[in-house]
Amino acid sequence: MHTKPRVVVNGIGTIGKRVAHAIKLQDDIKLVAISTKAPNYILKTVLEPKGPLYGTDLYASDSEALEAMKKEGMWVNGTLEDLLRNGAVDIVIDCTPEGIGALNKKNLYEKYGVKVIFQGGEKADVAETTFNAAYNYEEAFDKHYVRVPSCNTTSLIRTLSAIDWKIGIEYVFVALARRAVDPHEYNKGPINAIEFDKHVPSHHSIDVKTVMKHLNIFSLAVKVPTTLAHTHMVDIVTKRETSLEEIIEAFENQTRVIMLNAKEYPATSTIIEKFRDYCRPRYDMYEVVVLKDLINAEKNRVRYMQVVHQEAVVVPENVDAIRAISGIEKDKWKSIRKTNESLGIIK
Amino acid sequence: MHTKPRVVVNGIGTIGKRVAHAIKLQDDIKLVAISTKAPNYILKTVLEPKGPLYGTDLYASDSEALEAMKKEGMWVNGTLEDLLRNGAVDIVIDCTPEGIGALNKKNLYEKYGVKVIFQGGEKADVAETTFNAAYNYEEAFDKHYVRVPSCNTTSLIRTLSAIDWKIGIEYVFVALARRAVDPHEYNKGPINAIEFDKHVPSHHSIDVKTVMKHLNIFSLAVKVPTTLAHTHMVDIVTKRETSLEEIIEAFENQTRVIMLNAKEYPATSTIIEKFRDYCRPRYDMYEVVVLKDLINAEKNRVRYMQVVHQEAVVVPENVDAIRAISGIEKDKWKSIRKTNESLGIIK
Amino acid sequence: MHTKPRVVVNGIGTIGKRVAHAIKLQDDIKLVAISTKAPNYILKTVLEPKGPLYGTDLYASDSEALEAMKKEGMWVNGTLEDLLRNGAVDIVIDCTPEGIGALNKKNLYEKYGVKVIFQGGEKADVAETTFNAAYNYEEAFDKHYVRVPSCNTTSLIRTLSAIDWKIGIEYVFVALARRAVDPHEYNKGPINAIEFDKHVPSHHSIDVKTVMKHLNIFSLAVKVPTTLAHTHMVDIVTKRETSLEEIIEAFENQTRVIMLNAKEYPATSTIIEKFRDYCRPRYDMYEVVVLKDLINAEKNRVRYMQVVHQEAVVVPENVDAIRAISGIEKDKWKSIRKTNESLGIIK
Amino acid sequence: MHTKPRVVVNGIGTIGKRVAHAIKLQDDIKLVAISTKAPNYILKTVLEPKGPLYGTDLYASDSEALEAMKKEGMWVNGTLEDLLRNGAVDIVIDCTPEGIGALNKKNLYEKYGVKVIFQGGEKADVAETTFNAAYNYEEAFDKHYVRVPSCNTTSLIRTLSAIDWKIGIEYVFVALARRAVDPHEYNKGPINAIEFDKHVPSHHSIDVKTVMKHLNIFSLAVKVPTTLAHTHMVDIVTKRETSLEEIIEAFENQTRVIMLNAKEYPATSTIIEKFRDYCRPRYDMYEVVVLKDLINAEKNRVRYMQVVHQEAVVVPENVDAIRAISGIEKDKWKSIRKTNESLGIIK
Repeated sequence: MHTKPRVVVNGIGTIGKRVAHAIKLQDDIKLVAISTKAPNYILKTVLEPKGPLYGTDLYASDSEALEAMKKEGMWVNGTLEDLLRNGAVDIVIDCTPEGIGALNKKNLYEKYGVKVIFQGGEKADVAETTFNAAYNYEEAFDKHYVRVPSCNTTSLIRTLSAIDWKIGIEYVFVALARRAVDPHEYNKGPINAIEFDKHVPSHHSIDVKTVMKHLNIFSLAVKVPTTLAHTHMVDIVTKRETSLEEIIEAFENQTRVIMLNAKEYPATSTIIEKFRDYCRPRYDMYEVVVLKDLINAEKNRVRYMQVVHQEAVVVPENVDAIRAISGIEKDKWKSIRKTNESLGIIK
Repeated sequence: MHTKPRVVVNGIGTIGKRVAHAIKLQDDIKLVAISTKAPNYILKTVLEPKGPLYGTDLYASDSEALEAMKKEGMWVNGTLEDLLRNGAVDIVIDCTPEGIGALNKKNLYEKYGVKVIFQGGEKADVAETTFNAAYNYEEAFDKHYVRVPSCNTTSLIRTLSAIDWKIGIEYVFVALARRAVDPHEYNKGPINAIEFDKHVPSHHSIDVKTVMKHLNIFSLAVKVPTTLAHTHMVDIVTKRETSLEEIIEAFENQTRVIMLNAKEYPATSTIIEKFRDYCRPRYDMYEVVVLKDLINAEKNRVRYMQVVHQEAVVVPENVDAIRAISGIEKDKWKSIRKTNESLGIIK
Repeated sequence: MHTKPRVVVNGIGTIGKRVAHAIKLQDDIKLVAISTKAPNYILKTVLEPKGPLYGTDLYASDSEALEAMKKEGMWVNGTLEDLLRNGAVDIVIDCTPEGIGALNKKNLYEKYGVKVIFQGGEKADVAETTFNAAYNYEEAFDKHYVRVPSCNTTSLIRTLSAIDWKIGIEYVFVALARRAVDPHEYNKGPINAIEFDKHVPSHHSIDVKTVMKHLNIFSLAVKVPTTLAHTHMVDIVTKRETSLEEIIEAFENQTRVIMLNAKEYPATSTIIEKFRDYCRPRYDMYEVVVLKDLINAEKNRVRYMQVVHQEAVVVPENVDAIRAISGIEKDKWKSIRKTNESLGIIK
Repeated sequence: MHTKPRVVVNGIGTIGKRVAHAIKLQDDIKLVAISTKAPNYILKTVLEPKGPLYGTDLYASDSEALEAMKKEGMWVNGTLEDLLRNGAVDIVIDCTPEGIGALNKKNLYEKYGVKVIFQGGEKADVAETTFNAAYNYEEAFDKHYVRVPSCNTTSLIRTLSAIDWKIGIEYVFVALARRAVDPHEYNKGPINAIEFDKHVPSHHSIDVKTVMKHLNIFSLAVKVPTTLAHTHMVDIVTKRETSLEEIIEAFENQTRVIMLNAKEYPATSTIIEKFRDYCRPRYDMYEVVVLKDLINAEKNRVRYMQVVHQEAVVVPENVDAIRAISGIEKDKWKSIRKTNESLGIIK
């Protein structure tokens, strides 16, 4: 491993383009290249002179993609395999679509012995550890394969662990009103309906348990016609009586969790507008937002709502995961602070 | 009280126009007239020769409305007060907007001694009893003022009481993904956001307790950009261990609750399409729909999702409430069956 | 040809289920059967005791579909080919998805010599004539293969022909804001975007010319996130100077065109609500709605907006097309009036 | 007038917050302060340390607003009138809601003799000139009151003037599919409908003529349920025959007009995603986007579609308007280039 771990991001979609950009902002990690499958408008834009990845070396995920990119007149250096074969990479961040990561592991990553960070679309057993920076950074140490779970899972771990550490959790029920698609995915719906998640429990509670293994949690989910953010409604039985003050303190002390009042921010769109007004790149909201004035705590029951920007929440976790598996930073709080500062994260 | 109770519906909006239509289909109740405030397109349409209330006597809610209707060239018989003064009415179904019902009670209904059925927009204390046909029909007997709660409340009472009767409920948490507006309300949003209900608990759980007084229930709610139907996600602690079979049996035995599989009906829009295909008037779905293949029962926990057509659910309850307060039918199941048959309700 | 033409509807989707239902309401046409490919929830609903096609014989579009239906426990009489082989059918209304109709013609319909009415998803050359009841009913006489064009095309022909007959049209430009999907199609978008029709001109103006062959017309189209109805914005150069009165008269005299004021009906949803209030089956609006108070006529220019219920507009045209190709009615106005009355069409 | 004109932006909403930010990026103009009416979340965010207007002096639009801001604990310097009285301001950019600008002019601006730039919500006669940088920069010279028209009008002027200069325009018809509300306006609709603009012609064509006075133009408009961008469908009769090449050249040579292919950018959301990927503040797309592969030119007819980011298009025009009325830059192209470079505008 180099002192500056050399990273390639494979898959330049919603997550990959953000993670690559975030890596470029780190002074202790080197973005060697990006690789991807399709020479689409997103790829072209980020590589334009006005794009955030201008100047980054481009590789094709496979030889078919190589041809497609050349045909489009793109400056492509070869295939990802060419790059790995040369030993130019320590870590791959695999941001390919659901299920492709596992295939890549088998066909490519194992062959060249690179370390890999997978995303939440892959099954948990693709990796040795499912990762959350504040919760189990240490577990990812010396690991070869680590997985960053989805935005919903990551966000739930952030707030639930804050309460579990402080008060203890007996049982959690989460109802998710999920944004149906990302803003650019114009060809999927629903337009005027609520769609039911056919898994009971939905995969979210199962996925939380890949990190918080002891947690008794159950989730149901629906998809609703919006593109901006998910909203979670949470009902918790705590191990002892608690209070509003204690819950607020727990959230205040947790990184990447912020609180806003519904009185001022009555809808997901007004929260997103705040991050547009901060001029964050792509208005990315890396923090989970808990609605402070909607928190309820009575005896051993806690209820709250939280808002999750599905495109951005996992970005800082990916950066921290690099530091963890590369071993360049042993202190998780140092890594978290470094990532937070580089991305303008509030706390 | 006449042997056929003589009823006027005051307020011809989303609920009023449906209730008036439903009353016309009863052979033991007489729709004397409708009265309303605004000569808008809805009123005009239902009174057209092709409309379902063609031939019904029209009154104005007040003298200002009388003038407005005359100006529009409508055939209006006078004010609601004229009608009440003549002793031509036994029962008013008040379907006026939130809060107006209470004013009407004070200014008009008490003066003329008519019995009144209020809707869920009014506070519970406007009436002596908040009414659910299957749950507390008997309580409405001999009452003067009765209130039919909202579609969300009515639907929750239907399914929760089915479980409570059979198994017993210790605690309920409900998360509501509410349709934001009715289909015709083009000028309200949100278009692309989730809006947070600023009441914690939301009024839904409080309102359920006006009928199921002993129930330990808590609800959170969001509004989502759809017009078709609400979706509830329910998590219950039962008083004893139960099973999927038992829950399904409880719902099978409950009136105005039907079960469909999410596998075949994956979204609210496909459920509504079923009722369009039945050629129900305005596709009205009076039944709560529980998603059968998404019910979960383990030990003393039950989870399910249900879908609520906000425009239609309370219509049969209003018809039964007439029979209850008029005293023409002592047996609630006879009233329910009669209403169900007249409206084509499945069970 | 029997005196009562014997008809089968092949394809029970958005259009097919409506056309089959409409045929059942005619006293001079016999619905022999329906046939379809998938035993989905729509098929099951219309065949339920409460469904509008209860009691209709069911056939499978092919042997694969036959197995699928049997597996679902449906009462299916055989394949469509079995039915055609028996000579039990004079006319097939082909309501299968885009492009399948042409395959069916080649593989099935030609073989058994049945007459066929295709829908607008097929290319115009699948048929001898593209049909509009008021415009070219006579052309369909004695024909074997006739095509009813799409809802957009049919609606444009209705209003444009009214003006062309009376005043003469030099040039038409139409901009279509299309509903993106039908209400039940929950899995397509866009949720929060406008999608561009990539054909210039869009196929709508080309398709109008398959009926109004001489017309100089050009159209552009976008898809917008709504499920209820299309809206057309039309700019016409007439052959001579005209007036608002003359245009209104032209629309008043045209069948299946009605006028409503935007002042009372400010959005597509309020127009649809009117048809819900009429208690039309599935709120079907067979009439094109022109917004009367938004019509503009100055010198030799006419502009107007019209609203098209995509699910329903072509239904009466299919019924008339049966009378035309079967030869049971020579007078187009008699057919149109008969259809209009049976469906409750305003004029 | 100071060599660096001293500017205050009055009204910190969708436009005002952007214009103030843009002015801060100019080296020849000084943002003295902002003033506004409501201490809402937008105001607070832009003034936060992470906000783009951090450190800017804050004034209240009136004494009532002053109290409200103080109550919220904001650091407010006084009222706008205090600031004007001190002679500290040369130019006010009035970005207050529709109609308030005219009141401010009468009650405040005339009294203190400041120059004012109004927005398109005001009527044209509030100002001496309605302004478009490329079209009539010179007309705004030495003027006291100038108006920057709306995003739709500004965008139409950009593309129409490009064609008019080169080829000459006989007649224009524009159909607008307007975004219904801005992303943060969660409480307005429609959710699932198309709303008709009740003005015929819509105000857009009338407003274009306040700048391009000779133009023969007519527009119709609808509002559609999206928040991202407007789409215009344009049909032009040119004064002579033209060609696709000539139209493309005209657009290539016009500032603040760019072309993208619908093949790559099939929906407004994919275009907006490009500007998110550029990491523009709030993804602001100052340029009108013409869909290059959808342009049609035949003989003396031209048709095209264009996409307008309603929140951003007028921002550069406001900056240029400052240079024009202050007289600090006589050469319009120098001003336009300077503005374009400061905002990262492509061309």
